[in-house]
Amino acid sequence: MSSATITQIRPVVALLTDFGMADGYVGVMKGVIAGIIPNVQLIDITHEVPPQRIATGARILANSYRYFPAQTVFICVVDPGVGSSRGAIALHAGEWFFVGPDNGLFSAILAEETIHSVVELSNPAYHLPAVSSTFHGRDVFAPGAAHLAATGGAILTQLGPARDPSSLAQLSTMQVTRQGSRIAGQIVHVDAFGNLITNIPLHMVPELFSAAQVQITFPEQGVSVNKRRQFFAEGAEPAQPFIYGDSSQYIAIAVYNGNAARTLGVGYGTAFTYEEEL
Amino acid sequence: MSSATITQIRPVVALLTDFGMADGYVGVMKGVIAGIIPNVQLIDITHEVPPQRIATGARILANSYRYFPAQTVFICVVDPGVGSSRGAIALHAGEWFFVGPDNGLFSAILAEETIHSVVELSNPAYHLPAVSSTFHGRDVFAPGAAHLAATGGAILTQLGPARDPSSLAQLSTMQVTRQGSRIAGQIVHVDAFGNLITNIPLHMVPELFSAAQVQITFPEQGVSVNKRRQFFAEGAEPAQPFIYGDSSQYIAIAVYNGNAARTLGVGYGTAFTYEEEL
Amino acid sequence: MSSATITQIRPVVALLTDFGMADGYVGVMKGVIAGIIPNVQLIDITHEVPPQRIATGARILANSYRYFPAQTVFICVVDPGVGSSRGAIALHAGEWFFVGPDNGLFSAILAEETIHSVVELSNPAYHLPAVSSTFHGRDVFAPGAAHLAATGGAILTQLGPARDPSSLAQLSTMQVTRQGSRIAGQIVHVDAFGNLITNIPLHMVPELFSAAQVQITFPEQGVSVNKRRQFFAEGAEPAQPFIYGDSSQYIAIAVYNGNAARTLGVGYGTAFTYEEEL
Repeated sequence: MSSATITQIRPVVALLTDFGMADGYVGVMKGVIAGIIPNVQLIDITHEVPPQRIATGARILANSYRYFPAQTVFICVVDPGVGSSRGAIALHAGEWFFVGPDNGLFSAILAEETIHSVVELSNPAYHLPAVSSTFHGRDVFAPGAAHLAATGGAILTQLGPARDPSSLAQLSTMQVTRQGSRIAGQIVHVDAFGNLITNIPLHMVPELFSAAQVQITFPEQGVSVNKRRQFFAEGAEPAQPFIYGDSSQYIAIAVYNGNAARTLGVGYGTAFTYEEEL
Repeated sequence: MSSATITQIRPVVALLTDFGMADGYVGVMKGVIAGIIPNVQLIDITHEVPPQRIATGARILANSYRYFPAQTVFICVVDPGVGSSRGAIALHAGEWFFVGPDNGLFSAILAEETIHSVVELSNPAYHLPAVSSTFHGRDVFAPGAAHLAATGGAILTQLGPARDPSSLAQLSTMQVTRQGSRIAGQIVHVDAFGNLITNIPLHMVPELFSAAQVQITFPEQGVSVNKRRQFFAEGAEPAQPFIYGDSSQYIAIAVYNGNAARTLGVGYGTAFTYEEEL
Repeated sequence: MSSATITQIRPVVALLTDFGMADGYVGVMKGVIAGIIPNVQLIDITHEVPPQRIATGARILANSYRYFPAQTVFICVVDPGVGSSRGAIALHAGEWFFVGPDNGLFSAILAEETIHSVVELSNPAYHLPAVSSTFHGRDVFAPGAAHLAATGGAILTQLGPARDPSSLAQLSTMQVTRQGSRIAGQIVHVDAFGNLITNIPLHMVPELFSAAQVQITFPEQGVSVNKRRQFFAEGAEPAQPFIYGDSSQYIAIAVYNGNAARTLGVGYGTAFTYEEEL
């Protein structure tokens, strides 16, 4: 066995939660994982999902997972129903594994990837010895994910009984429909720079940059945006909001060296209309 | 030597500080550690302890360390006395090692674990060549912890002279006493969700869920809580504070899908009375 | 090959950005890196550089890089010009490698280290297949840094054509000059504790602690500081600002157990005069 082969053996576990980093909860989950699989590569996606906002967690996961190596195990915990009867699941979808509550967090995965199998995490052999009613991230999801990572997913069917993929929770807010030249959309994410990410994927608007005119109107705020930019710094006018294609492949709005959310008075969940004139 | 054996060799160093992540101080500590022990598994517990609030750091450490693998080395730096005559210590306690200032941060460890040995970190051979007066995390604690992790703790007695465990600083706020059916407690932590964690361990109140009635009263705020819930989502009434057993094994108060701290006007350090009627 | 040799093979990639941790961007960069070099040791320096404030990023990098092991690859992304014609570079300087935009972020490296070589990151073989106009951290810098780390830097010249080091962007704000007993300086960093870090290196003021008197005056705020302390806790008077030598080797101002920025009404960019009387 060559050293090259050996150094490849670093299974990735990626974490996405709404726990914040202040209280040590994420560190405890990682301690549990490292105890089961010492050579794990732990990667934080985010722990700053706004508390219990499942749709934001689902969106960030959707924008991230494709960039991780095959076999990565994602632990996702935005879990307002912890301790209730909501399911705890592990998914093998596309080239990856996903572990978390069955509450819609995995909507994009279910919509976009081939689902190979889904199980309910009910086998206590893969839980911590004492399972609390409030911290399944530590007691159920962390050990389940660690055992999956340690075995390249081979353990999946032993974690619990199979679930029918069509029975899993899905978020309706991830759907958007076009009616001729109009689309009704909403802001689904405001990033740290104040950029406004919409729920309209770029593949729905192939004419975004070629149409004679494009306009996004926020009726409640009484503002609209019609400048378009393919590059942030192109013809940069300070304080001037513009439409662009975000790196996550959705329509977005920014202000060069500024904050579009503040400039437009627009935030998470704001509805708008997209119109184009060919 | 099999690859399984090789991949087990990933000593864990866990970090807990009040440094925040903004200034790069934590990254520098990790750079020092990785230079001494390249195959280390670095895990953040928290770096958001409120500046210089030793009691909060001690509490988060107390709630976390048991979930980490045996031999984990914890570096804990909440250190208002840096540069003064406070000691810098390394502890071998239970199955773990702890490195940091002698100021009470390790109170729970001293109370709950068998102390195998304690040393003063005064041997300059295990410091960085130049020790600053303000950043012992980088210059003293990081190299000491890294050498401990690299040797599975074997180096401990070479880090400096032995200290008498009974001479170490301890926090008095971690003690609470019962008088019949009453306990005087305080809020010792408010987590990111606004949940209020008290200093009353669940093992002190075995009747918490079986008593006819239980009441927590905040005299200063003129509010009290008497609902109890074993599960967050059980009979969830919005905006209704309830008493539960936190995953760290202390009495706590929450509001389902809400913020108990804001609802009750209660925060860190608030005193209360716990009463039960059997 | 012994196991000791094998466990040394953990190349470090250190990350410094203004992305914040909320949106998952940093996690995506790490996913890309781990896909190319599974045994990487990923270390965060900071992701909380104030948005697009290149000078702060440059300062934190300057204070950090020397503490990382030789061969560490630093990815630094504070990049207001992303998508414009600003260059994307990789540097081999001193014992380290640096990857990021050519906008002044590496000013201190260029001033203080021997520059072995610089290349423009224009070879698409070392980019992700699709390069976005807004997220070069993921599409250009992460894969470039990962390939550098995987080869111990051997791949550098294949990443793109050589650049003349003298053509690289440099920040002027990192320079300060002495006129007799006076120096005009400014606050270049306010850390999480409210400590004020200046741009005057300690080696410029060898008399800082031996001079009969030293005074720092903020003319705009009408306040001055003349106490000096070699240790934080030495003769600690609450609410009393004092001058000290920061662990990054610059003059700084602190309040013991307090916040100097708030006490003095001084912040990032504030100008001052340093005077000494021998």
